[in-house]
Amino acid sequence: MASTTATSAHSTLATRFRAVRSRTLALVSPLTPEDMMVQSCPEASPAKWHLAHTAWFFESFVLRDFLPGYRPFHPDFIWLFNSYYQTFAAFPEKRLRSSFSRPALGEILRFRAHVDEAIDRLFDSRPTPEALERIEIGLNHEEQHQELILTDVLHAFFTSPLHPAYQPTPNKPTHAAGPASNLSTNSAAESLKFVQYGGGLVEIGSAGHADSGFAFDNELPRHRVWLEPYSLAHRLVTCAEFAEFIADGGYRRPELWLSDGWNAVQEHRWRAPLYWNGNEATGGDSSGKAGWTVFTLCGEMSLEQIANSPVSHISFYEADAYARWAGRRLPTEFEWEAAAESFPIAGNLLDCGNLRPVPAEEVASSARPAAPAESSPAHGQQVQQKQGPAQIYGDCWEWTASAYLPYPGFRPLPGSLGEYNGKFMSGQMVLRGGSCCTPQAHIRASYRNFFSPATRWQFSGIRLADGSNLSPVFSSDER
Amino acid sequence: MASTTATSAHSTLATRFRAVRSRTLALVSPLTPEDMMVQSCPEASPAKWHLAHTAWFFESFVLRDFLPGYRPFHPDFIWLFNSYYQTFAAFPEKRLRSSFSRPALGEILRFRAHVDEAIDRLFDSRPTPEALERIEIGLNHEEQHQELILTDVLHAFFTSPLHPAYQPTPNKPTHAAGPASNLSTNSAAESLKFVQYGGGLVEIGSAGHADSGFAFDNELPRHRVWLEPYSLAHRLVTCAEFAEFIADGGYRRPELWLSDGWNAVQEHRWRAPLYWNGNEATGGDSSGKAGWTVFTLCGEMSLEQIANSPVSHISFYEADAYARWAGRRLPTEFEWEAAAESFPIAGNLLDCGNLRPVPAEEVASSARPAAPAESSPAHGQQVQQKQGPAQIYGDCWEWTASAYLPYPGFRPLPGSLGEYNGKFMSGQMVLRGGSCCTPQAHIRASYRNFFSPATRWQFSGIRLADGSNLSPVFSSDER
Amino acid sequence: MASTTATSAHSTLATRFRAVRSRTLALVSPLTPEDMMVQSCPEASPAKWHLAHTAWFFESFVLRDFLPGYRPFHPDFIWLFNSYYQTFAAFPEKRLRSSFSRPALGEILRFRAHVDEAIDRLFDSRPTPEALERIEIGLNHEEQHQELILTDVLHAFFTSPLHPAYQPTPNKPTHAAGPASNLSTNSAAESLKFVQYGGGLVEIGSAGHADSGFAFDNELPRHRVWLEPYSLAHRLVTCAEFAEFIADGGYRRPELWLSDGWNAVQEHRWRAPLYWNGNEATGGDSSGKAGWTVFTLCGEMSLEQIANSPVSHISFYEADAYARWAGRRLPTEFEWEAAAESFPIAGNLLDCGNLRPVPAEEVASSARPAAPAESSPAHGQQVQQKQGPAQIYGDCWEWTASAYLPYPGFRPLPGSLGEYNGKFMSGQMVLRGGSCCTPQAHIRASYRNFFSPATRWQFSGIRLADGSNLSPVFSSDER
Amino acid sequence: MASTTATSAHSTLATRFRAVRSRTLALVSPLTPEDMMVQSCPEASPAKWHLAHTAWFFESFVLRDFLPGYRPFHPDFIWLFNSYYQTFAAFPEKRLRSSFSRPALGEILRFRAHVDEAIDRLFDSRPTPEALERIEIGLNHEEQHQELILTDVLHAFFTSPLHPAYQPTPNKPTHAAGPASNLSTNSAAESLKFVQYGGGLVEIGSAGHADSGFAFDNELPRHRVWLEPYSLAHRLVTCAEFAEFIADGGYRRPELWLSDGWNAVQEHRWRAPLYWNGNEATGGDSSGKAGWTVFTLCGEMSLEQIANSPVSHISFYEADAYARWAGRRLPTEFEWEAAAESFPIAGNLLDCGNLRPVPAEEVASSARPAAPAESSPAHGQQVQQKQGPAQIYGDCWEWTASAYLPYPGFRPLPGSLGEYNGKFMSGQMVLRGGSCCTPQAHIRASYRNFFSPATRWQFSGIRLADGSNLSPVFSSDER
Repeated sequence: MASTTATSAHSTLATRFRAVRSRTLALVSPLTPEDMMVQSCPEASPAKWHLAHTAWFFESFVLRDFLPGYRPFHPDFIWLFNSYYQTFAAFPEKRLRSSFSRPALGEILRFRAHVDEAIDRLFDSRPTPEALERIEIGLNHEEQHQELILTDVLHAFFTSPLHPAYQPTPNKPTHAAGPASNLSTNSAAESLKFVQYGGGLVEIGSAGHADSGFAFDNELPRHRVWLEPYSLAHRLVTCAEFAEFIADGGYRRPELWLSDGWNAVQEHRWRAPLYWNGNEATGGDSSGKAGWTVFTLCGEMSLEQIANSPVSHISFYEADAYARWAGRRLPTEFEWEAAAESFPIAGNLLDCGNLRPVPAEEVASSARPAAPAESSPAHGQQVQQKQGPAQIYGDCWEWTASAYLPYPGFRPLPGSLGEYNGKFMSGQMVLRGGSCCTPQAHIRASYRNFFSPATRWQFSGIRLADGSNLSPVFSSDER
Repeated sequence: MASTTATSAHSTLATRFRAVRSRTLALVSPLTPEDMMVQSCPEASPAKWHLAHTAWFFESFVLRDFLPGYRPFHPDFIWLFNSYYQTFAAFPEKRLRSSFSRPALGEILRFRAHVDEAIDRLFDSRPTPEALERIEIGLNHEEQHQELILTDVLHAFFTSPLHPAYQPTPNKPTHAAGPASNLSTNSAAESLKFVQYGGGLVEIGSAGHADSGFAFDNELPRHRVWLEPYSLAHRLVTCAEFAEFIADGGYRRPELWLSDGWNAVQEHRWRAPLYWNGNEATGGDSSGKAGWTVFTLCGEMSLEQIANSPVSHISFYEADAYARWAGRRLPTEFEWEAAAESFPIAGNLLDCGNLRPVPAEEVASSARPAAPAESSPAHGQQVQQKQGPAQIYGDCWEWTASAYLPYPGFRPLPGSLGEYNGKFMSGQMVLRGGSCCTPQAHIRASYRNFFSPATRWQFSGIRLADGSNLSPVFSSDER
Repeated sequence: MASTTATSAHSTLATRFRAVRSRTLALVSPLTPEDMMVQSCPEASPAKWHLAHTAWFFESFVLRDFLPGYRPFHPDFIWLFNSYYQTFAAFPEKRLRSSFSRPALGEILRFRAHVDEAIDRLFDSRPTPEALERIEIGLNHEEQHQELILTDVLHAFFTSPLHPAYQPTPNKPTHAAGPASNLSTNSAAESLKFVQYGGGLVEIGSAGHADSGFAFDNELPRHRVWLEPYSLAHRLVTCAEFAEFIADGGYRRPELWLSDGWNAVQEHRWRAPLYWNGNEATGGDSSGKAGWTVFTLCGEMSLEQIANSPVSHISFYEADAYARWAGRRLPTEFEWEAAAESFPIAGNLLDCGNLRPVPAEEVASSARPAAPAESSPAHGQQVQQKQGPAQIYGDCWEWTASAYLPYPGFRPLPGSLGEYNGKFMSGQMVLRGGSCCTPQAHIRASYRNFFSPATRWQFSGIRLADGSNLSPVFSSDER
Repeated sequence: MASTTATSAHSTLATRFRAVRSRTLALVSPLTPEDMMVQSCPEASPAKWHLAHTAWFFESFVLRDFLPGYRPFHPDFIWLFNSYYQTFAAFPEKRLRSSFSRPALGEILRFRAHVDEAIDRLFDSRPTPEALERIEIGLNHEEQHQELILTDVLHAFFTSPLHPAYQPTPNKPTHAAGPASNLSTNSAAESLKFVQYGGGLVEIGSAGHADSGFAFDNELPRHRVWLEPYSLAHRLVTCAEFAEFIADGGYRRPELWLSDGWNAVQEHRWRAPLYWNGNEATGGDSSGKAGWTVFTLCGEMSLEQIANSPVSHISFYEADAYARWAGRRLPTEFEWEAAAESFPIAGNLLDCGNLRPVPAEEVASSARPAAPAESSPAHGQQVQQKQGPAQIYGDCWEWTASAYLPYPGFRPLPGSLGEYNGKFMSGQMVLRGGSCCTPQAHIRASYRNFFSPATRWQFSGIRLADGSNLSPVFSSDER
């Protein structure tokens, strides 16, 4: 894990600390104390718990170690808000978090203020580089929980029979795409094209200190990976496209599915992505779109309204089955990273405020990277076209075909923070690129998210990939 | 189901309506809106749901049928707060109640006020006897939920890792038993005696309209049952006595248990009643009491403090195993009712405010019935002693040896209310007598409560019984 | 438990011993050693295990206690073939019985021969009355397992995808009902009539030693029960009648079901009795019979073929729902016993060899009891018609409305045999009357069988009952 | 998938066909028909099913497609013995295989003979290269099931309470290691050394047709992988070494485990490898070996007897935790293959007849490969020592750190055979090298086995790996 620890970074970090902490509070502002109690699935936690746990993190891993004389806010909070650090302290079972009516929200907010004030003191006290690095970890941790707050609230509000909306009316896209672009437009999305990459020996993983950015331990060490030539779709799969898969019997054809995926379809009776209401049979038109509604943080929307938005809240198994149906495959995390590395970090991220995936067309050109140079030594592979793929960052986390495993030479952080990422390196798949609920400052090309392949509560979608020798749609005369 | 419907009863009922509805609100007054969201086990519901559901009951079964022009408070509440009436409306799965952050508590309170105001109007409008009868059902229904609110909060606060107390310090017993009586007294409880009954042909079930009281459909029709001679313990089994069972290996000896009970012990790893913390091995003294604490609505108490209080929160299986260990048995519901019928309704009930079982000695003599006459035609059996058993009402629901089954000629209430009791008549055991959380106005000799035999979240305890020919402890010279 | 222990009984018992033991072997003669390995549901055991366990019973509870110098066949068999006697020896989990490939069938047969030879020696050695009583228990135990062998084989052969038949072609009914009676007859069964009983104070339970018969401990002590007037259907509910229930949406209407029953319907997706293949929708005629086939020990049969045979292999929940749909109820075990007590023990039992329920008409008049005298002191109740109900014994075990509970004053057998019946007295319902797989010598009026209410693997069916005041179908001029 | 299809290969294949088919029958010769019915865990199938399914494979994928006029043995067998080919035919649930008492073993043997005779005819009829390739697939399929027969019998005999042995007394090692080598020798195993590899760009996957051997689709296409320098342990971890891990609290220390692994330890209460009996506390000596016995196909053995044999029947989680405890890691499948590629295929495989792992010392030098040349272009990496690792093939399948995923450009076989391997490419880890139950002709450097990480019923063990910069034990002066 690496961070910028130069002196000038000190005040930048203090500013960033206040901004991140404030945004967490802003994110819960539409919620009542009762909303913040709900834990509607095993993956989720109550929003109040997220507020407390992120304060606990700073208390446990920054203030107790680096601020002399720090007085913990409450002796029980040390274990009460521990999530899973076995070597740090005992902790309650995750499912019990929905019983934490006490401490009340007010006390949690005082806990946060107590921690904020102590961090301020730490900033004023010539903190060591290690202390600053820990603060940076804490901020990245808090950004993860910002995203989780929204993910969990979406599930909670979907579970609540009255289906309240977190954000009553859809925001305009941050970067308007001109007068023709609006939510009710149902013109077909741009047809799917593939961008080719030459592969070769590429470097994967965070470049670390040298180029300034923060990275989690699971992004290190930077190492070489050999890639065969490949291509990536220029945008994510849309809701309309996914509706065609459903209409074509996608959920009823075992030959499209991994064995575990087919078992999951049977066991959970999946018939559509999570949050889709309706059913296959009600579709009155050949497109398969009629009759579906989709629940979002902006409330219930018709599938027509969001036909060109990326499909979201699907499991790895569904992403994989869709790709097989489409005659394609999912990219590996290495293919994705090699392609993404030279792009600016921009897209439909949390900072846009959409809080739902939007069509590729609605993200302004400034968020689309220029084509990389013909031969970019930085990522050791040839890219053979003028414009790169869109929606690399934001909208939906993109399921990759890569299992979440340690990089060669992986070393967990020392101490209890070693449990942060490493112990989850089995049974999960890597996702890349962030979602509409990921803070822009949080995402990067080397960032590895991970969930078990049956997970659907996340903002997770599909980017197709292919081998370069497999009928790329992107026409050859543009090379 | 029978009720007093005479004209004079009208204003009595209106008064009772206001009192019952107010008490519900009083019971939740120590709770925060967040507390009222918790649903910590499958048996429980959030307190807010109880507030809403009891209003729903009046709206659905009284106002919609009997108040012309009644305008329901909210169109969705008709199904949202339905508990289990399949023939009335769809309803959400019970486990989802913990997701009802909306409607907010404030709206639920307005819902209750809306219903109260409408019932007032109904009272003012010459209600039919049937309408008054339905109101009476609604009040009995609400009293059941008053008890459930407390039962569920106890479980919620036990589950919450900080273990808050609902009622911070133990109240004094309602009727002080003199200077020697206090909580820290650990003198042995009066040793267990048995009161003998002659049995014979007795009448069981509510006498109904004729003698004025309300009864649920499951208490009807009154019918004859033949009883062999039997005897009942003069008080409930105490915590100290139950600790001896534990110390004697009670939870490790299969020969003491029903087969299903032994399976439950293994599966759930029961080692003590619910809410007991500690373990068998820590007991430093031969009594087995040392080292245990017991969580109550008044917070954590040591077993020494409540040694003479009735043991509570045990399953039928544990009650049955204890009885076998003690060389006794549990009474049938008919033996219990025949003995209880002539007693005044008094005891450590909700109205006392203890909210936990207390020693038999702490309930004043006024709450103990005089001995019934030698030969009481009212209940068709001979009773052969001067003083009847104590703790018949209140403290703990008493597990009986009777399965919950329909009485001969049982007819469910007409309409959807027919689902109130009848459809649960399988797989459950009858409990009698009410608990420290049962409203005094709610309980009676013919009252049948019922839970599945593995249930422990209720205030459920043990009264031993025996055949009269089986070494009765109560000495014969007292007859 | 009582048995005939007079000297003359000694040689009778020896004859009976040989007959019972031989029949067990005859019952497995259609089975291969591989068939005898199958354990296809948690209720079932492999046939080989039944062979071994019944020998184990004699070894453990007769020979080791009463034959001096008895040498057990194999030291491991003492625990290996123990079923559930916790106080006798350790035992393997029930589900492991399907792994007992060793000992091989041949060794089990030698074990049986070893035990038979030792029992012969015991008979030759002036056995005590207690020893003879234990042998009688052992024979009753073996008769239970004879029935279980057939019940379990039916399930095993249904589970086996090739669906072999135990007994390839249906036997002719034992007592032919004339030329018109044959399996393909689909004439309507005699329409259902009800026989009235006056109730009153009746004696229930085995009369024990005095009148000669054996009884299990759970049939004792004989005691008095008060019955209200009631009526019983004159025959069991037929397959054709049950098909009407299905065609009328019986499995889709929650108002017909107990709450636990409705949950079972949803969880197990019950749509018809166990062993019925087909579905509701394929029925082309209004009777609902078309399209169903039913698997029996005689192989697959069409519903038309067995339309007038009693419906079998239904749970208590289905029996109860059917009764509610029919506007009736199930009888209590006491109503059943009071009615059955004066009947001769005859019917479609194991000895007939049908091994499946047959229409009431096919059991000859000799198996139908004459009407009891107008006022029979033996069973303390008035019976008001000339002919009693048919199918009291045999065909199907009849679910009653009674939970399986101890009789007043119940005492389990001493020693480990006390675990035989008593520890199962929770969570189960009583069935009465035996089935087509019950040995005639095994059944009697006081016999109590018991299964949990969701059990369907048994030959279990429905006899309807009613209160006498509820429009009895049996015409009043016959009284 | 590639195979030798030259004309000369034709008669070789016919010879091989007879040898493989005969060996399957030889493997079941110690089993009774009853033994062949047992299915003691979800991973396992009855031996009789394996016999039938392997015949089914030839019938379904060879004879029906390539032998004109072939008459299937039985019309139901087409679906009855289908394992999981969704696109081929319906199939019974796997758990039902234990109910297949019919067809009897005799009929299955006739089925096999019928298929053998038809394959003979096919060999006589100028089979196409495609037909021969399918036969080769069928033989490889049958070899997998040979191994499974033994794996499943071991579990069945362990489950059977009498614990019969498949093979009563341990065979001598195939290649005796001199007079000092015998089973009771408990001298310490040679201390663990590490062999270093230089990594670099290596080729992975079967070289296919070109170099003659058969390969499954999942070993293709051969492709390049970049490896960092690494080292591999020169032998497998022994039972004695694993006992030290247990004695050091390995199963009680969460910091050693992946999160999913720790959950599995808690859920299944793992305390030792599968088939180990005894417990940690009974170990009287500091080595932790005392008190343990281990069940093998040769019956129960003491841990002392097999102290130097490789530990087997552990999950990936246990292998991973052991490696962490030892300060090492597991190799990736690529590291393993690159190291193994130049070795001769020899070791303690099925052909040795040991049927259990044996100490490295007991496999004669002929089975240990010579050191590869300093710079071997064949596998593109430098190997820096004189002698390579032992036990590369045989003894135990070696868990790798690699998830089972498709190689770049993976194409499943056409038709239903495409379901053979590809659909299982999620949630599983790769194992390499074969076990003591793997036929020698079946294994190769590119062979990929795969199981879910919690699987313990396989012969699965541990080879440690390390980065080359991490204190390699192998001393540098030997380079």
